[in-house]
Amino acid sequence: MSSSISAQALSELNPLPRLLMGPGPINADPRVLRAMSAQLLGQFDPQFRQYMRDTQELYRGVFETANTQTLCIDGTARSAIETVMVSIVEPGDRVLVASFGRFGQLKAEIARRVGADVRVIEAEWGTVFDLARIESEIRAFSPKLLACCQGDTSTTMLQPLAELGALCRRYGVMLQVDATASLCGTPLPVDAWQIDCVTGALQKCLAGPSGIAPITLSDALCETIMRRRHVEEGLRPADYRPGAGRIITSNYFDLAMIIDYWSDRALNHHTEATTMLYAARECARIFLQEGHAAVYARHALASRAIVSALEAMNLRIFGDTSNKMPNVTGVWIPDGVSGDRVRTAMLDEFNIEIGTSFGPLHGRIWRIGAMGYNARRDAVLTTLAALETVLAGEHHRFTRGAGVDAARAVYQAG
Amino acid sequence: MSSSISAQALSELNPLPRLLMGPGPINADPRVLRAMSAQLLGQFDPQFRQYMRDTQELYRGVFETANTQTLCIDGTARSAIETVMVSIVEPGDRVLVASFGRFGQLKAEIARRVGADVRVIEAEWGTVFDLARIESEIRAFSPKLLACCQGDTSTTMLQPLAELGALCRRYGVMLQVDATASLCGTPLPVDAWQIDCVTGALQKCLAGPSGIAPITLSDALCETIMRRRHVEEGLRPADYRPGAGRIITSNYFDLAMIIDYWSDRALNHHTEATTMLYAARECARIFLQEGHAAVYARHALASRAIVSALEAMNLRIFGDTSNKMPNVTGVWIPDGVSGDRVRTAMLDEFNIEIGTSFGPLHGRIWRIGAMGYNARRDAVLTTLAALETVLAGEHHRFTRGAGVDAARAVYQAG
Repeated sequence: MSSSISAQALSELNPLPRLLMGPGPINADPRVLRAMSAQLLGQFDPQFRQYMRDTQELYRGVFETANTQTLCIDGTARSAIETVMVSIVEPGDRVLVASFGRFGQLKAEIARRVGADVRVIEAEWGTVFDLARIESEIRAFSPKLLACCQGDTSTTMLQPLAELGALCRRYGVMLQVDATASLCGTPLPVDAWQIDCVTGALQKCLAGPSGIAPITLSDALCETIMRRRHVEEGLRPADYRPGAGRIITSNYFDLAMIIDYWSDRALNHHTEATTMLYAARECARIFLQEGHAAVYARHALASRAIVSALEAMNLRIFGDTSNKMPNVTGVWIPDGVSGDRVRTAMLDEFNIEIGTSFGPLHGRIWRIGAMGYNARRDAVLTTLAALETVLAGEHHRFTRGAGVDAARAVYQAG
Repeated sequence: MSSSISAQALSELNPLPRLLMGPGPINADPRVLRAMSAQLLGQFDPQFRQYMRDTQELYRGVFETANTQTLCIDGTARSAIETVMVSIVEPGDRVLVASFGRFGQLKAEIARRVGADVRVIEAEWGTVFDLARIESEIRAFSPKLLACCQGDTSTTMLQPLAELGALCRRYGVMLQVDATASLCGTPLPVDAWQIDCVTGALQKCLAGPSGIAPITLSDALCETIMRRRHVEEGLRPADYRPGAGRIITSNYFDLAMIIDYWSDRALNHHTEATTMLYAARECARIFLQEGHAAVYARHALASRAIVSALEAMNLRIFGDTSNKMPNVTGVWIPDGVSGDRVRTAMLDEFNIEIGTSFGPLHGRIWRIGAMGYNARRDAVLTTLAALETVLAGEHHRFTRGAGVDAARAVYQAG
């Protein structure tokens, strides 16, 4: 035993039983935790390769796509966004970012770092874009790639995407959608909506931990990537010819090599994060077993219950409520109430976490999530009852019990 | 339930009870699996921030360093190597790679992709470098950074490093050591050996899954990185001034931002991979509770047992045995024996995985690992007994029972 290490650091892991009702991460479904407790397999074990193929198939189901290249990136959500960008964008390529919150800013940041010529169009926080504006920007800028969020958790807004893919195809623009925060909380039929690329995450509506990110890539987008295929020294097959395109400036995020690794040729790349792959597989299984429609309805119901409750508590919902994400709700912190003190009381006294937001919204709104495993009646009602108690202690004026009763009524109406 | 998904993909995760005795990944310590089954916490939960600080303290213990910047990268081992390189190397900077196997090639590959002017010096596979050669290359090339493996699992060789850090400091060269495969299997006192940067992994001697990578960075190296600090839009503190150095061309691998995220200022970056952080913390706890000397002795004993057994089975150890990694042993596949058929029989009939190697060694050597949780007498003896059975079936000539008896004698002598 190393004597210089503190007793705290050496203490047994024993997290408090938090109920995570913020913008994510949320609690993992216990089934996912059980799957992650399974013993490891070698990365080229036939059974493990089968689990990888299963995972691909399951996420094709999740994404409602026939895309062969549906797989996982071993990193958090933003690693998947960067993987796609660095593998597609060559220095000077034009990237248009439609930003309606902090995670739009993030995509612009990543695109600039990988060398793109970036134009950002912004929608006021709390609103989304109409298609005409995006179309005129595409005409003016002629980007190679358009990147945008489906749901930007920083503002709780949900960009309608049903027509955007077709618009992009008309102009020969590739569309990259960041569905980190929305995937499995709201419809995203990738093929029907003609989206070239979607990146996701587990820690929101999929009810798993962060650390692995499912993605899907259209065949056309993969062609662009495979033109840049440069297999690393020591692994080149006998028939290897490097792609004509410029080498991708990251090894870890080289999608051509990641595709080779996931393919039946199984060219070595990273060592697949076994436990996270187990988690990704289990999250998709749970989602598909419940079924798309049922899961979306469960999130929509929770959203209605929360909105009704907050309004009944004399609070004002943030932003354009007709384009609100179903899995997270922004609400203005009332005058005279300390947002941080409320969050601290919720956490310390009730073990319930809710969030605030970033930048101009920091300390001005709370974000209350109900997603994945936590988009449950008991979790929603418990959170609202706790919030009422704390708000009453802050002398916020509202009819005590009105919030939780309103939510309960929404659930009883179904 | 989505009807188009196969029953296989939807089947319950249920991995076979493999004993992973190859070059890694190996089996996770059951304590690590239990830690990973703990429920999630929010990334800014005070308890979770404490777990992050614990993890930093524990890895300072593991690395025997006082380095403040000792933390984890949310990706596999190679992501940590790339994180360091992209954060230090500016285009055209000289990087010298001392390569003695496939994972030396990998570092050269990563360095080239991030824009370095790379010179590779190679030691024949199965050997290591002497310091005089490295010194003359440093004098000739004047690199900013020298990168090398401690142990390169592809060849099972272990580069002596005790004097290399001091040599690099004499010439003003930063030293990056890739200890993915050797960390916790053999001494690596980072401060005593004056190493600027070490990257590791869990899936070898630390007995956890891949997907998160502990690293440690000297203060001097951090100064170089922080000169390139550019905080992303939307997160910039009031007192923010961008660093004078060139912006790091990756967002996910931007060590300045990762350091800010891990620091008490807790600037948002990725969403920490909660479950993998739990795993990293538990792996380090287990290691430190057993103690450096005891763990290294356990690996050395397993290595002696395996070498004795293989020699007694009329097999020839690969490479320079005086510089062999203690946690993995390379052995020539005897003439007339199919290496793949033996590995398949081991896997199918005994649920035991051993490895072959890459490139010129593929199909010519086996690699037998005994590391982390699997550097145990029962695992070693069981593996050797199985190998004897399979080799006898392949008509390899040796005295049946000689191998496992030799290993047992080594263990009995202690």
